[in-house]
Amino acid sequence: MTDLTSLDTLETPAAVVDLDRMERNLDTAASYAAEHGLALRPHVKTHKSPRIASAQLARGAAGLTCATPFEAEVMATVSDDLLLAYPPVGAARAERIAALPANVRVTVALDSVQAVDEIGHAARAAERTVGVYVELDVGMHRVGVPALEDALALASRVNAVRGLELAGVAFYPGHVRESVDEQDAALRRLGDGLDRALSRFKAAGLSVPVVSGGSTPTLWRTHELPGVTEFRPGTYVYNDRTTAAIGACAWEDCALSVLATVVSTAVPGQAVIDAGTKALGREPVRGADGEGFGQLLEHPEVIVARMSEEHGVLDLSRSDWRPVVGERVRVIPNHVCIVVHLNDLVYGVRGDAVETSWPVAARGRGQQAV
Amino acid sequence: MTDLTSLDTLETPAAVVDLDRMERNLDTAASYAAEHGLALRPHVKTHKSPRIASAQLARGAAGLTCATPFEAEVMATVSDDLLLAYPPVGAARAERIAALPANVRVTVALDSVQAVDEIGHAARAAERTVGVYVELDVGMHRVGVPALEDALALASRVNAVRGLELAGVAFYPGHVRESVDEQDAALRRLGDGLDRALSRFKAAGLSVPVVSGGSTPTLWRTHELPGVTEFRPGTYVYNDRTTAAIGACAWEDCALSVLATVVSTAVPGQAVIDAGTKALGREPVRGADGEGFGQLLEHPEVIVARMSEEHGVLDLSRSDWRPVVGERVRVIPNHVCIVVHLNDLVYGVRGDAVETSWPVAARGRGQQAV
Repeated sequence: MTDLTSLDTLETPAAVVDLDRMERNLDTAASYAAEHGLALRPHVKTHKSPRIASAQLARGAAGLTCATPFEAEVMATVSDDLLLAYPPVGAARAERIAALPANVRVTVALDSVQAVDEIGHAARAAERTVGVYVELDVGMHRVGVPALEDALALASRVNAVRGLELAGVAFYPGHVRESVDEQDAALRRLGDGLDRALSRFKAAGLSVPVVSGGSTPTLWRTHELPGVTEFRPGTYVYNDRTTAAIGACAWEDCALSVLATVVSTAVPGQAVIDAGTKALGREPVRGADGEGFGQLLEHPEVIVARMSEEHGVLDLSRSDWRPVVGERVRVIPNHVCIVVHLNDLVYGVRGDAVETSWPVAARGRGQQAV
Repeated sequence: MTDLTSLDTLETPAAVVDLDRMERNLDTAASYAAEHGLALRPHVKTHKSPRIASAQLARGAAGLTCATPFEAEVMATVSDDLLLAYPPVGAARAERIAALPANVRVTVALDSVQAVDEIGHAARAAERTVGVYVELDVGMHRVGVPALEDALALASRVNAVRGLELAGVAFYPGHVRESVDEQDAALRRLGDGLDRALSRFKAAGLSVPVVSGGSTPTLWRTHELPGVTEFRPGTYVYNDRTTAAIGACAWEDCALSVLATVVSTAVPGQAVIDAGTKALGREPVRGADGEGFGQLLEHPEVIVARMSEEHGVLDLSRSDWRPVVGERVRVIPNHVCIVVHLNDLVYGVRGDAVETSWPVAARGRGQQAV
């Protein structure tokens, strides 16, 4: 058998996490939350691992954020406070959420009457109470109620539905993708909008104990937003090329890379690695300059310029480095959440030693066979 | 429990295959191969399923094509003739290939001296013979030997290495992405190049019993290429929006769709479904016009215009259709191979009845935990 304890012999492509970097990332965010009195509720979509979630909870995370019922089911093994930051629409989805273990405090974020009614029905059928955040559209225009009047009406309806409890408001500033230094105007607009919304909720006699927001790009400026009590960053645990490009982390904070092998140098001016779309995802750098689909950890002047499913083409035009077939590289991906979602297993390394591995336990959907 | 036997109650997002369409696609390609005396060696990267592979073999497929060692290991349960159309570089990869069951005829495609030496070493260690296709670069500039002299030298080296056997030449016309009707010039260039190459191999006394090529975009014109004896299409089993856009299949031949639920209509002019990057992949239409990341089966005027990880934003601007929250849609993805790779399970339907499901058994890498 192949020796699995060194980066030199690990089979490629493989997702490898620098444990020192990851632990530093977790510590830094936990310190920031504590310093500013914010509840950190990490989004598990990035790691999909109860083990990493436990490391977040051990550092003081107030609970976890999930996107899918399967993520919530897996995370219920390590946390008793889960937020589904996704509209609980569709009978099957609502039922799975309501069927989470009774000891788990469950909250959902939603933006429609249909969702209120569906999760209310499922909560009553399961004889439990489900908390609700009314989701506001603060400028991303994805989900969330755009008009304040509609948000207030939805909150009142939540209060009127047995089995549900208005627990707060939620927003996601996913549209703020400027580099951290250039977010002033966007954050000011965001803050003004939140201010107005919270005043209206108060004037209407609607109590919103939690104001839940935050993404990784705006992570370190969450405390500047008036009224925010909790934040839900996901990517910060591993970071990626995009996070570094917009200045929300340093290049040295990128903890996850895709280990790959050079499999061909037959075509001049390039080298082909065994990490393509099925290992890296076809994600752009967003909010900052950055061509290609990933950047080499050890040769940052080299990018993955093109991809097929199992091939990544390295552009060597800006580098003196001339790899040979069999040489190994580590690629910092543009969007780490997608890379994790493509893997069943992630390896943890310190230096060149492969110390451990863990399953991406909440990958997939937990679907039933027919 | 939720009733799983109808499309109306299946949990979303889910990959569903129209079995009638798939069976028709399999039949049509098998008939084409038989009619032209070509060996069809389907690429399993598209379905990653022994069950679908068996359906291909039952219709006369000569063997299977794989990209990864794990695909080969899984497919060895249903076929005794496997081609790894990927450079067998890296000790771990070469060893896994050589460790396939002894009854399986194993062939690899390669383009470097290093690959010859590595797979040769592994073959001798496993006391077996591995067939080799020398891979030619016919214009895609991904892998493959560009210069004929180098290809001839590599073929001679294969013949000189104990444990290896020169079995043929391989090429992949992945650069031919024009619509089928506009491929004339590209196929002529390709044919001329092949002609020259095969003459040189013959003149050098190098026997190439197999000339292996073909992709889904060029599938139906494979017989026009001089000397080709086998072809390796993958996508044709399910087809996708790209295949239809370039005219290599009809829209009605798209067999796989992603079933999704409308989860939000809060933001005017759009509807949000629960299929985003993690269900559809962020793949463009290639070789033809086509914005967005997928197109609705029942409302082809509607595309998935934007995506987050778990959200797809439908652009309703060209449609009179106004979906409500909870409504279900089926999305024909731009690139079906990526969608399958994102799923553990695929459902098979006839009409609205969910008849069966099968695991995407060769998804992932079959990696060892540490």
